[in-house]
Amino acid sequence: MQKVLNKQIVLEKRPVGKIADGDMRFCEQAVEDIPDGAVLIQNQYVSIDPTHRIWMSSMRQYMDPIELGAVIRALGVGKVIGSKDSSLKAGDIVTGELGWQTHSVRNAKELFPVKMVPEPLSSLLSVYGLTGVTAYFGLLDIGEPKAGETVLVSGAAGAVGSVVGQIAKIKGCKVVGVCGSDEKCDWLVNEFGFDAAIQYKRQNIPEALKESCPEGIDVYFENVGGAILEHSLMQMNQFSRLVLCGLISNYNLTSAPEGVKNFAQILMQRIKVQGFIASDYLSRWPEAIAELSSWVQQGKIKYKEDIVEGLSQIPAAVNKLFDGTNSGKLMAKVN
Amino acid sequence: MQKVLNKQIVLEKRPVGKIADGDMRFCEQAVEDIPDGAVLIQNQYVSIDPTHRIWMSSMRQYMDPIELGAVIRALGVGKVIGSKDSSLKAGDIVTGELGWQTHSVRNAKELFPVKMVPEPLSSLLSVYGLTGVTAYFGLLDIGEPKAGETVLVSGAAGAVGSVVGQIAKIKGCKVVGVCGSDEKCDWLVNEFGFDAAIQYKRQNIPEALKESCPEGIDVYFENVGGAILEHSLMQMNQFSRLVLCGLISNYNLTSAPEGVKNFAQILMQRIKVQGFIASDYLSRWPEAIAELSSWVQQGKIKYKEDIVEGLSQIPAAVNKLFDGTNSGKLMAKVN
Repeated sequence: MQKVLNKQIVLEKRPVGKIADGDMRFCEQAVEDIPDGAVLIQNQYVSIDPTHRIWMSSMRQYMDPIELGAVIRALGVGKVIGSKDSSLKAGDIVTGELGWQTHSVRNAKELFPVKMVPEPLSSLLSVYGLTGVTAYFGLLDIGEPKAGETVLVSGAAGAVGSVVGQIAKIKGCKVVGVCGSDEKCDWLVNEFGFDAAIQYKRQNIPEALKESCPEGIDVYFENVGGAILEHSLMQMNQFSRLVLCGLISNYNLTSAPEGVKNFAQILMQRIKVQGFIASDYLSRWPEAIAELSSWVQQGKIKYKEDIVEGLSQIPAAVNKLFDGTNSGKLMAKVN
Repeated sequence: MQKVLNKQIVLEKRPVGKIADGDMRFCEQAVEDIPDGAVLIQNQYVSIDPTHRIWMSSMRQYMDPIELGAVIRALGVGKVIGSKDSSLKAGDIVTGELGWQTHSVRNAKELFPVKMVPEPLSSLLSVYGLTGVTAYFGLLDIGEPKAGETVLVSGAAGAVGSVVGQIAKIKGCKVVGVCGSDEKCDWLVNEFGFDAAIQYKRQNIPEALKESCPEGIDVYFENVGGAILEHSLMQMNQFSRLVLCGLISNYNLTSAPEGVKNFAQILMQRIKVQGFIASDYLSRWPEAIAELSSWVQQGKIKYKEDIVEGLSQIPAAVNKLFDGTNSGKLMAKVN
């Protein structure tokens, strides 16, 4: 086998505030032997997610922080180009934690072989991957929406939020999305079928919530935190559910966040608040993907992707997640 | 029937900070006719609870605030002394919302007849009433403790907290209580069987939590809020449960509480936080009372009561709930 040169992005130092170029470093490394039980993967797409900002920090988090000097952790989809495990052969498509790099050597047991390869391949990282599955389990398992209930989604034009809203519509709910531009509001209502959209930068949030959720909020799918969370808590119904998926408004703060002032409403309205990450449901991903696939084929779920070309574009792309300029599942095509 | 003079406490104005004498007013009123379907009750014990401070405020809460000029709402136990309903007769013991007053006229349908009257009668407001049932459903239904897990209880020497800890011990958990005096710490460990107690006024809370919960916190039964909540969130385990029963440290604040700064840990550790009140479980109270009764008879649960004599003592007694001088279920004997 020909020697492979692997290009990588490693964590150089922990960001303060927004991720800066100097926080990461590009490097190259020749791939040495593939150990027994492992495979060499030519990565195709690698995921760029808000959670990267968490992983780069040293805060108490749901996995270990990325170590300084290590390749940046990331989900990815790739093609096996060398194998020392009988379960995988060259040409097989796999997903798993592949990292921000052009090639990965991984133990076969850590990978998920893809038997039915969808079109486009990138959908394995969006609607049939992290973001679709996050929307599916968060809304259905934790949010427990019932037909006729009102579902509010923050970060609604994002890769997760837009799918959450569409699943909630499939389940017969009234769906309201919160986003940061008039163009995104337009997508939510006219493309993704939301009943209403709130532009939080321009509108008075409490008034807009009252107007669009006149019967209160039964399920709040939270991606953002901050002011939207505070105001939503004041309009959540008794026995409502707050699905805590993300708090992206906090991730770039350089000091402690302000604190959730309306926390007592969780008691007063007997709200269930539950945090989750999609990997908690790993054993049930096939169930989610099968159902999402059927909805996509029936035209009931649309999804957007935002694909940058090449590993070198990742540092510039990652901050788009935090300034509102990104739309659709962000990822990089690295081969 | 002889005319009955009913002594009452009504809400005069909404408290600012601690409840002040002028916030309430005593009055007397002759009981007129009993309407059809209703009964006249001579109240025996009426409950004094932290939630009174919530009901007296106009904050967004789980029931309507008490209206100005209305009798202060309260659970109570009393004896029927006049009846215009075939389901109840003079001498019957009932519980229900009887109010801070010596007598109540209530529709029979709103009352709970007590068939097996326990000794002492006051236990219908403590271990066999609001506080016992609150501990039971909050811990078991929301906290879902498993044998071997670590359960942390704040306000642990209170009427709810002390029963929570004892039920958790019955379920095979390691139990740590947080309270505000050395004497209460001593009770928790030596009388109620807690494994450890933290005196939050004297000890460094994060260090004490680390020492007493070396394997982290699996269930946190929250009665207090504030600093204890912040520090506990930092030591709660993945997939742990936070039972939100009360936030007594907030109730007398004259400005908005500081806000929960470590809210993101709910996401990071995938914690379930759920608010509840005992009346949400009304249809299942008999199940709780039967089991509590069996535990009390087996000596597995001990409980304390703090009974003041006469309606006139209530205004002085109610603030004991907030300054830590009360221990055991607080109530007034009014007849």
